[in-house]
Amino acid sequence: MGKTIAEKIFEKKVGYPVKAGDLVIARIDMAMGQDGTTPLAIQSFKEMGGKKVFDPSRIVFIIDHNAPSQLEAISMLHDSMRKFAENYRLTLFEIGCGVCHEIMVAKGLVVPGDLVIGADSHTCTYGAIGAFSTGVGSTELAAAMISGQLWFKVPETILVHLNGTLPPGVFSKDVILYLASQIGADGATYQAIEFAGPIIDQLSVDERLTISNMAVELGAKAGIIAPDEKTLTWVKQRTNKPFEPIFPDPNAVYIKELTYDCSTLVPQVALPHRVDTVTSIGSLGEVIIQEAYLGTCTNGRSVDIEIAAKILQDKKVHPKVRLIVAPASKEILLEAIEKGWIETIVKAGGVLVTPGCGPCVGTHQGVPGDGWNVVSTANRNFKGRMGNNKAFIYLASPATVAASALEGKITDPRKYLR
Amino acid sequence: MGKTIAEKIFEKKVGYPVKAGDLVIARIDMAMGQDGTTPLAIQSFKEMGGKKVFDPSRIVFIIDHNAPSQLEAISMLHDSMRKFAENYRLTLFEIGCGVCHEIMVAKGLVVPGDLVIGADSHTCTYGAIGAFSTGVGSTELAAAMISGQLWFKVPETILVHLNGTLPPGVFSKDVILYLASQIGADGATYQAIEFAGPIIDQLSVDERLTISNMAVELGAKAGIIAPDEKTLTWVKQRTNKPFEPIFPDPNAVYIKELTYDCSTLVPQVALPHRVDTVTSIGSLGEVIIQEAYLGTCTNGRSVDIEIAAKILQDKKVHPKVRLIVAPASKEILLEAIEKGWIETIVKAGGVLVTPGCGPCVGTHQGVPGDGWNVVSTANRNFKGRMGNNKAFIYLASPATVAASALEGKITDPRKYLR
Repeated sequence: MGKTIAEKIFEKKVGYPVKAGDLVIARIDMAMGQDGTTPLAIQSFKEMGGKKVFDPSRIVFIIDHNAPSQLEAISMLHDSMRKFAENYRLTLFEIGCGVCHEIMVAKGLVVPGDLVIGADSHTCTYGAIGAFSTGVGSTELAAAMISGQLWFKVPETILVHLNGTLPPGVFSKDVILYLASQIGADGATYQAIEFAGPIIDQLSVDERLTISNMAVELGAKAGIIAPDEKTLTWVKQRTNKPFEPIFPDPNAVYIKELTYDCSTLVPQVALPHRVDTVTSIGSLGEVIIQEAYLGTCTNGRSVDIEIAAKILQDKKVHPKVRLIVAPASKEILLEAIEKGWIETIVKAGGVLVTPGCGPCVGTHQGVPGDGWNVVSTANRNFKGRMGNNKAFIYLASPATVAASALEGKITDPRKYLR
Repeated sequence: MGKTIAEKIFEKKVGYPVKAGDLVIARIDMAMGQDGTTPLAIQSFKEMGGKKVFDPSRIVFIIDHNAPSQLEAISMLHDSMRKFAENYRLTLFEIGCGVCHEIMVAKGLVVPGDLVIGADSHTCTYGAIGAFSTGVGSTELAAAMISGQLWFKVPETILVHLNGTLPPGVFSKDVILYLASQIGADGATYQAIEFAGPIIDQLSVDERLTISNMAVELGAKAGIIAPDEKTLTWVKQRTNKPFEPIFPDPNAVYIKELTYDCSTLVPQVALPHRVDTVTSIGSLGEVIIQEAYLGTCTNGRSVDIEIAAKILQDKKVHPKVRLIVAPASKEILLEAIEKGWIETIVKAGGVLVTPGCGPCVGTHQGVPGDGWNVVSTANRNFKGRMGNNKAFIYLASPATVAASALEGKITDPRKYLR
């Protein structure tokens, strides 16, 4: 009986045959912590009597949630991360380096076939390059930093097969929002998803990252895409680490196989306050917006900034909209400067903030006011997500966000892409 | 008996002869409010029974202190400014446009000979282009918005005559820090200062803005520089407003005349927690820093970013320093991108934040941790200024800040400028 990618990665990490449902203790290839979760992990590490870390080269700290710090107490938490990283010789990425999930893949810290944990729910992002990666709590991160291992239930896998070709103006974000509407926010709880099919083949690795990033929004433990030539080229450009890509067996057993044709897909919008309450843009009605946000680990990459700049070129953001732009990393900021996208966006009235999480996590850099509607490229629109439980967050693609910023209301981007 | 610039501007605004010490009610040419002070002014406006503003074209609101907003309550205050500006048809500059004082001069909203108030203590900046401008409280701003007038005591004037030529690596910031040490933080209380002499003649208008900006740090009501050809050219490039430059009478009567030779001046550093406790950089001893800040209404202009980029070119910020950079306006950001300065600074490890006040006012974007030493291009180093009363702020020129960021300790920039 064939195995899924998830089963095969766990099998490799434990050294004996496993199948979905098995409880295992597996070796971790990489463990990541960001500044929202790591201070607690450090505290737990001490409470557990941690004296040393299992392998300094396999633990990475990234300061992205509050970058630069907006409160003295948070600066002190950052200091605790810096001190720990220095003491144990860990790599720490400072404020301004970017969002943790972008750094982990773009810096080649994760490779296909890896088992990775991160104390951040969107750690599932790295599934796009064929890793099994998943979010854990601060205490689990602490235990893993000491032991290099963690327990898992090997998940069952849903195969999501995506057929067709995406029409112009429709992007990978629209695909995953559509899947959220079809599968539901708890439709894949504690399961892995394998995304496959012609749509996945056609997408760039950067675009695939958007899809894997939001697997957790369907409840999934991981959202994996089998590596192809694009993946291998992309990864080899970023790392010297040896790696062995893992593919699903042809006769792998899935708990469910779902097939969707995306050829007639239109831009999608998730309505407040659920990621799976999704509508086609044409059915939305008029939604006046006060804020638009382009960025995050979901959609803050070059491909996202490029399409937004294309739409904003020689135009002006609506005077009643604050368009906030956070490139997902320093390198993406530099590329966006070099390509002229930042100039275009700032001239149009966009507001650049430091590479990092920006206003997504509600700690600073664009907390909405009461009653505001925000259209965002992020992955979550829970009540209060951006720091105000009286605001309303709509999720959409970078193209939709840019078009909406121009018109002051949520707008179908296809009219700007003809 | 001749008159000073301050006396002559007030004379023009009241329409009859005045001299220092007179109490007058004068017409205001411009009134400015930022987001730290304007919400209170709006409240006072209502409490005073304000029904309309005296002249919508003479009132400007600028959102720069919390940009983008870091708290929902502050977003609501921003909303109150937006609503008021919309109701009364005032010009409002949104998040990302820049620091209020840079906008007021660079957008040509203030011209030589103007009498300007702003609900921000560094409104004295516009003295550099020959205006009498001064900071007021929120209630005074409210009264002025209704009546177009405000009471003043016509100030006495100290003439500060600056001789010589600035040596390489010494800048207008060093001059004003040196003057703070000589005159003291209360040395010019409720007086105007006229800055004059060969040093002023040699400085560009942008460099002069740094000097006038800090006049209030000497207690002064205004820090005025008589317009010259440079001023008139600079202003005419920015506005179509008619204006009449005001010059001091040759026989003007000053309360005090101070003369300094700046030919042997060296880089200056103000020590925590007083702006007038200033030392030459050679006498400082070793000061390890954790944060460096380049920006503000004092030193966030193109000339400042250019010199910092020159020092940072092809080098790396010390790994234990967070170098935060906030261009003083959107236009300066765009110029700094075009000239390659931002690329240089970001590649060196600097962290770009949104044009605006940045961490200067302690509300976000780089609040220091306990015990941190910060070297900053700002104008104030009072205890708690940057949001943490357990941090230590040193003030210096952009060149000193850049050199210090490289070495991880406060460093004489002249070694990098040979």
